[in-house]
Amino acid sequence: MGLFTKDIATLDDLFVHQLQDIYYAEKTIIKALPTMIGKATDPQLRQGFETHLAETKVHVERLERVFKMHGQSPKAVNCPAIDGIIKEADEVSGDVANKEVLDAALIASAQAVEHYEITRYGTLIAWAKQLGRNDCATVLQETLDEEKATDHKLTSMAESKINRKAA
Amino acid sequence: MGLFTKDIATLDDLFVHQLQDIYYAEKTIIKALPTMIGKATDPQLRQGFETHLAETKVHVERLERVFKMHGQSPKAVNCPAIDGIIKEADEVSGDVANKEVLDAALIASAQAVEHYEITRYGTLIAWAKQLGRNDCATVLQETLDEEKATDHKLTSMAESKINRKAA
Repeated sequence: MGLFTKDIATLDDLFVHQLQDIYYAEKTIIKALPTMIGKATDPQLRQGFETHLAETKVHVERLERVFKMHGQSPKAVNCPAIDGIIKEADEVSGDVANKEVLDAALIASAQAVEHYEITRYGTLIAWAKQLGRNDCATVLQETLDEEKATDHKLTSMAESKINRKAA
Repeated sequence: MGLFTKDIATLDDLFVHQLQDIYYAEKTIIKALPTMIGKATDPQLRQGFETHLAETKVHVERLERVFKMHGQSPKAVNCPAIDGIIKEADEVSGDVANKEVLDAALIASAQAVEHYEITRYGTLIAWAKQLGRNDCATVLQETLDEEKATDHKLTSMAESKINRKAA
């Protein structure tokens, strides 16, 4: 957005800005996941990350659909939050000497990513409804449901196996 | 952590590193909240942020207690994730021209912060239990419960009032 102008005047502007932010975030996650897949040792965890990579590509397509439904061209704006979350994931995983402990660290990083997406999609859905765009809210809800399901799967995998192997 | 050494060899090391990360994050939130309070217009939202500032100071004290229970001196390590989330909050709020829309943006930013804390405390509690430290898990759970309650209060305030005023 502008450095010297205040570009967000309405809730609609804020909704579009937030769409652009999560569009950048989803594309950044697509770039980051192959590294996480490469670092994971547990086959179920690797498979979970691979499934989520495929899902994330669909999330990008859904966002492009919402942009169009809302009369906007898809556009990404910088999202320092996801950049920070991914940077932290890289730093921590680079510091772990043991591959079972690394799996536990990778799950924690992936859940930080999921929670960022959960909060942003939750907000976008509330704003879409307030703006009378239940059609956009419905599409965004599909992605939110998948992000929450991924987070629960990661919790279950961590608590049933990965943390025990790491301890 | 070390640039040329892998300092995290065990799940216990990872637990302590994550404690140091969230300790930095909580202290960063204490510095950021007064700015958010100053920008908020709705009196209930301002009051909500003020209450959360007081709670966050208790969260820092609880973390110091957990460090000591675990035989560690309280120490903060850089947390690029929270830095990115706060940077994004500052950038977006600086771009909003209307005070009702700004309140909606501030709630969204606060919920991004809450979700970061929710994921980190959730992970810390799972790791503490795996390490046989139910005593640490119990203290961390008190904070997690408060973070979740704050997130729900913010959702409720956004959906019942703030988003409608912004639209």
